[in-house]
Amino acid sequence: MSVTNTRPSDHSSAQDFATVFARLKPHMAELDVFLRKQLAAFEPEIRDMADYCIDTSGKRIRPALVFLSGWQDDSAPLSDLVRVAAVVELVHLATLVHDDIMDEADLRRSKRTASREYGPEAAVLLGDALFAHALHLAAQFPTTEVCLAVSDSTRKVCAGEIVQTLRRGTINITREDYFRVIDLKTAELFRISCFLGSRLGGFPPVFVEDASRFGRHLGIAYQIYDDLADFFGKEKNIGKTLGTDLISGKVTLPLLVLMDRLPVEERAGLVEEILGRRAPDMSKRLLQMHETGVFAAVAGEVQAELVQAESALSTHIGLAPVPMLMQLCDTLRHQVGSLRAIPGV
Amino acid sequence: MSVTNTRPSDHSSAQDFATVFARLKPHMAELDVFLRKQLAAFEPEIRDMADYCIDTSGKRIRPALVFLSGWQDDSAPLSDLVRVAAVVELVHLATLVHDDIMDEADLRRSKRTASREYGPEAAVLLGDALFAHALHLAAQFPTTEVCLAVSDSTRKVCAGEIVQTLRRGTINITREDYFRVIDLKTAELFRISCFLGSRLGGFPPVFVEDASRFGRHLGIAYQIYDDLADFFGKEKNIGKTLGTDLISGKVTLPLLVLMDRLPVEERAGLVEEILGRRAPDMSKRLLQMHETGVFAAVAGEVQAELVQAESALSTHIGLAPVPMLMQLCDTLRHQVGSLRAIPGV
Repeated sequence: MSVTNTRPSDHSSAQDFATVFARLKPHMAELDVFLRKQLAAFEPEIRDMADYCIDTSGKRIRPALVFLSGWQDDSAPLSDLVRVAAVVELVHLATLVHDDIMDEADLRRSKRTASREYGPEAAVLLGDALFAHALHLAAQFPTTEVCLAVSDSTRKVCAGEIVQTLRRGTINITREDYFRVIDLKTAELFRISCFLGSRLGGFPPVFVEDASRFGRHLGIAYQIYDDLADFFGKEKNIGKTLGTDLISGKVTLPLLVLMDRLPVEERAGLVEEILGRRAPDMSKRLLQMHETGVFAAVAGEVQAELVQAESALSTHIGLAPVPMLMQLCDTLRHQVGSLRAIPGV
Repeated sequence: MSVTNTRPSDHSSAQDFATVFARLKPHMAELDVFLRKQLAAFEPEIRDMADYCIDTSGKRIRPALVFLSGWQDDSAPLSDLVRVAAVVELVHLATLVHDDIMDEADLRRSKRTASREYGPEAAVLLGDALFAHALHLAAQFPTTEVCLAVSDSTRKVCAGEIVQTLRRGTINITREDYFRVIDLKTAELFRISCFLGSRLGGFPPVFVEDASRFGRHLGIAYQIYDDLADFFGKEKNIGKTLGTDLISGKVTLPLLVLMDRLPVEERAGLVEEILGRRAPDMSKRLLQMHETGVFAAVAGEVQAELVQAESALSTHIGLAPVPMLMQLCDTLRHQVGSLRAIPGV
């Protein structure tokens, strides 16, 4: 296809999370120093490639969840939290590098993807090396707990991506499949970030468990928002044409809802587009989404997940991490509100 | 290219290692049961794919090194050894799955590669999932030692593969580069197999260190042999046309030696072939290898590494693992001897 193919994630600018993230500035600075130091551990040929990826890492939501879930006060972050934040970020970066190969994406956050910059072959191995380094850092904790958690999560993330890849370009996907995929591919890393942050922050087990549940629902909400933004985002914010998920045959929640709500003959046309048998008529689909109330339906799903996330923390109001974690939910609500309910306008 | 592109490794039949491997039969059977049990841990969509890979795993040299390095007697293997054998084998399988994407290989041991069977996208993720599962098993040991060792080795294996990939189709490679690449991509997993086997087998640190050194040199020897077999193997044994390394622009030791020994004008022609500017004249190159004594030179390098491997164990003659490890060196010598000194005949 001739359009510039850009990854559908990372729709918002770094400023969106500004309120919470301002307090995390020193933490993120320490994380950055830590990540840069890791580069020395790579063979010379990989160092530049790894550096390139760390540069493009974006908003660092997962490290933020680690720091916030282990939050005590505004003093310097515990070194354990910095290390584990690096672990989850490196796992995330590794999956992005591999995703971009799959999607044949050209750009990520306005920069050429590693796959385009170094070739898909090198990108496969670069992702492997980033992932191996993440596990290497995880193994430096005194017990095997971090390693166990990270390797298990990574397996789930891969599983989610595989299921998504196998279903691409088919309509063989139900709402349940969609939720299972995003639970695996996105919510799992959000969950483990909150789990490890609260655990290493020294919080009691009952909070660790509830913070993990919070992370999971926040992750589901975030992915649904991300999929919604692919159709309803403002092009200048998301830096790409709308509807890339439809173009690439990826059936997300907005498309599932639209399929459900279209009359039979119209649905057949949409199915042809998903199957790649004809080019998507994007303006028509966006208009249909508007007419059938897809935005409100999908935004409602985000809201439902956010409510579950908040309720997971409701018995821990007095704990230092809770107000800041709650604020993340409001931030995401605000982001959903700033999408266009009338798509593509 | 129209020839069937088959992975250049695994040239020998399983029988070649028969003498040593006969005693390992119960160990390999336990490993197989253990690996099959792991499949249950994968999401349903990946289970079949993972099963397919485990089926094609070949000779299981690395698990053999684990069992032999931790050898006490003919009784049932320690469960720790079975687990760690599974870890190194899964890491190896993950790298094969990713290698086959890179090489666009059709077949591995007469079976379609995972990349051909499921598509390169799914194969990227399948490799990731196998690797994540390996680390998950590694994290189940009581201490972080296995995780640390395995994640570090994997990083090195990836580094070796990256350097090799970046140099493919160029003549920008020295003898030192070649040895560095095979040290990273092959010898590292051989080394760690001996390290973990002897360590978990309860042997004293000085033996663990020497066994690791043995493994490293055996690995280097094995890779040089493998590269030699790509030109001097018997086609019926290796199940593919000779010279795939040259066809794919991979400069291995036989080619480095040939380049060194060819007169200037002939060398220029070979360089053109490596750079992919003209199709390799394989029978000519094979004949030149014969005339310039490439076989003897490269076989000499295998021999030199095997001598170093054996000398690493020379002060431990009384220990149970040593005679069997030594026998592996003789087996590899025998395999080199069974190649054709006159290539392609």
